[in-house]
Amino acid sequence: VNKVLVVGCGLIGTSIGLALSGADDVLLLDTSADVQAAAVRRGAGRPWDQVEHVALAVVAVPPARTAHELRRLQSLGVATTYTHVASVQSHVQHEVEALNCDLSTIVGGHPLAGREISGPPGARADLFVGRPWAVCPTAASRSEAVSAVRELVAACGALPVTVSAGEHDAAVALLSHLPQVTASALAGLLVQGGASGQEGSHRSVTSLGLSGPGLADTTRLAASDPALWSEILRLNAPRVAPVVKALVEELLELHHALEVLAHEAGEDEAGEDSGADRSSRGSEPYSEAQRAATAAVKGFLRRGNLGRALVPVKRGGLSESFVSVGVVVEDVPGGLARLFVAVEGVGVNVEDVRVEHLPGRPTGVIELLVASDAAASLRAALGEGGWRLSDL
Amino acid sequence: VNKVLVVGCGLIGTSIGLALSGADDVLLLDTSADVQAAAVRRGAGRPWDQVEHVALAVVAVPPARTAHELRRLQSLGVATTYTHVASVQSHVQHEVEALNCDLSTIVGGHPLAGREISGPPGARADLFVGRPWAVCPTAASRSEAVSAVRELVAACGALPVTVSAGEHDAAVALLSHLPQVTASALAGLLVQGGASGQEGSHRSVTSLGLSGPGLADTTRLAASDPALWSEILRLNAPRVAPVVKALVEELLELHHALEVLAHEAGEDEAGEDSGADRSSRGSEPYSEAQRAATAAVKGFLRRGNLGRALVPVKRGGLSESFVSVGVVVEDVPGGLARLFVAVEGVGVNVEDVRVEHLPGRPTGVIELLVASDAAASLRAALGEGGWRLSDL
Repeated sequence: VNKVLVVGCGLIGTSIGLALSGADDVLLLDTSADVQAAAVRRGAGRPWDQVEHVALAVVAVPPARTAHELRRLQSLGVATTYTHVASVQSHVQHEVEALNCDLSTIVGGHPLAGREISGPPGARADLFVGRPWAVCPTAASRSEAVSAVRELVAACGALPVTVSAGEHDAAVALLSHLPQVTASALAGLLVQGGASGQEGSHRSVTSLGLSGPGLADTTRLAASDPALWSEILRLNAPRVAPVVKALVEELLELHHALEVLAHEAGEDEAGEDSGADRSSRGSEPYSEAQRAATAAVKGFLRRGNLGRALVPVKRGGLSESFVSVGVVVEDVPGGLARLFVAVEGVGVNVEDVRVEHLPGRPTGVIELLVASDAAASLRAALGEGGWRLSDL
Repeated sequence: VNKVLVVGCGLIGTSIGLALSGADDVLLLDTSADVQAAAVRRGAGRPWDQVEHVALAVVAVPPARTAHELRRLQSLGVATTYTHVASVQSHVQHEVEALNCDLSTIVGGHPLAGREISGPPGARADLFVGRPWAVCPTAASRSEAVSAVRELVAACGALPVTVSAGEHDAAVALLSHLPQVTASALAGLLVQGGASGQEGSHRSVTSLGLSGPGLADTTRLAASDPALWSEILRLNAPRVAPVVKALVEELLELHHALEVLAHEAGEDEAGEDSGADRSSRGSEPYSEAQRAATAAVKGFLRRGNLGRALVPVKRGGLSESFVSVGVVVEDVPGGLARLFVAVEGVGVNVEDVRVEHLPGRPTGVIELLVASDAAASLRAALGEGGWRLSDL
């Protein structure tokens, strides 16, 4: 049984306490007595008296306060090893150096997990199961300290990913901070009224009544706490600014293509051309410029397919019992439907689907995630049915 | 029992067939015999002989082909009323006019629902339950035709939203097409390697191993079919282009603030200043420019909170048995956690949470979605506990 101290009983701190409490002796501290008491009631640990020594201290406070809390705990000499869970690692590393901390016993970490409901009430013992958890040792880190932090990660059921602080911060700028920024920007437009903007400050109820699950998914992160997230974006600004710029450039390229298409559609709708002309124009791209713009839009969407195919969707134990079967599908509406019909005929359940288009080629590769023991028969049946299989 | 014809056995067409098949006699047609047979096997209806007359014909083919299919069916005189499910309504309306269709019997519609798995295998009888379904009559529409389409919507369990084609297309540009574009742009950056870009064409596996649920949610739509979506974006380009531009402007404003913060962070990290100076700079914004930039970032995130609060997350039957309780919370990290601790103390389950910040004010309003019969006791308990309640 290890003694572990968790300082900061927010969502992450309390969840760590819950995850460890079965096997370890967890001590808790929060600047709010109410919050600390709630974490204790949830079963995340017992109150810390600010004296008792522990094997590992986990600092789970907002990133801008993390280094000072590490310094304070080290000056009390309460733990053998120290870690933290800050969303921005370089900043904390610079600060602990500047504060003359003992660098040999501090190894930063960051679990990639979260929920909308914060504090002890949102905490879950399984919050980290199957999730990546960055571990960021430095040249000064003692190997025992690195091992202790990796053991913490494993005990929480997470997957340790060892990276430098700089690599971590560059990765989360793209993979976590940019999605946050995108969700906030998208949701922010709903307030401004968007392009038509006739409602003044808010979209009309009728318009928002027309939203589907896509809007709900893409704006979910926009509910995040501005106090916490403005701090994260500020501390990681040198890495977030360039990826925001890259996103803007991607969108401007699409915007240019849409302007071309809008211009021709506008002429079409306003024009005096005969019905037959107009209808044939609507169904098929008709000018060279419109053909090029349509190809640009399609290329933009295919890059999205490629990128989405890289996003780990299934994690942990599940991924080991499933394998991917790649199938080449013609790039026409309905092509995907015909494939699913064929798969259904084989009697195989598809667990997940990814569409991957090869840039500059008129076909796509569909990746079907199926149970390992069904893959061989699916491959054989699709091959017999005339489908072209793709090595993934 | 009504006879309903569904033309196009994709995800939407087959799901309509499944939703109606209990009560109505559904006939099916697809240009692919295999896909049609799969829809019949799923129980979505029986094959149509291209002769049998029906009360309602539903055209569920890609938007650029919709008007021509309506024209063809009308020329066969097979139905009393015609509807379709095109994602872009104005285009179809212009085309059916141009094709000299009988406008009195055509009423366009568009269900806001979808899944990743297309075709008959992805179809579900409950795909539309609680979802909005736009109904777009024109001045030429017969009232019986409008009623027939609204009955179809109700029979599928969806919520009819009557709007003009132009209103619909402006709304979906913002609420559906822009989320699609955003997801594709974000996922596309993963392929390009993002800002650090050192990997050439793909991000390293290590980096992508650091992605959390936020990236999975915000890029889910990026798996969409480029053939179908390039068509949708082309047909709605006059309305999508301006909202893409508005999103770019929102992101550029944030980018400007991040550049200011990055500049000062860069000086900080590279500088020769003493440890104490450096650490105090990291924890608190210290220059006027940095304070203003931090406020701009916070404002950006708060607009996102406001917008997210407008997104309908819970729908259908559920929304009637839940009510919102608004509570004013101090805008400090941990403020939300303290509220949830207080709510937990009252013993009330929170179904959903929205954070709404009032621009220019240092506090936020937290909207708690709780069971109707628990709201009064929650309000009373929070009031006694010193929390300030907000009328929503």
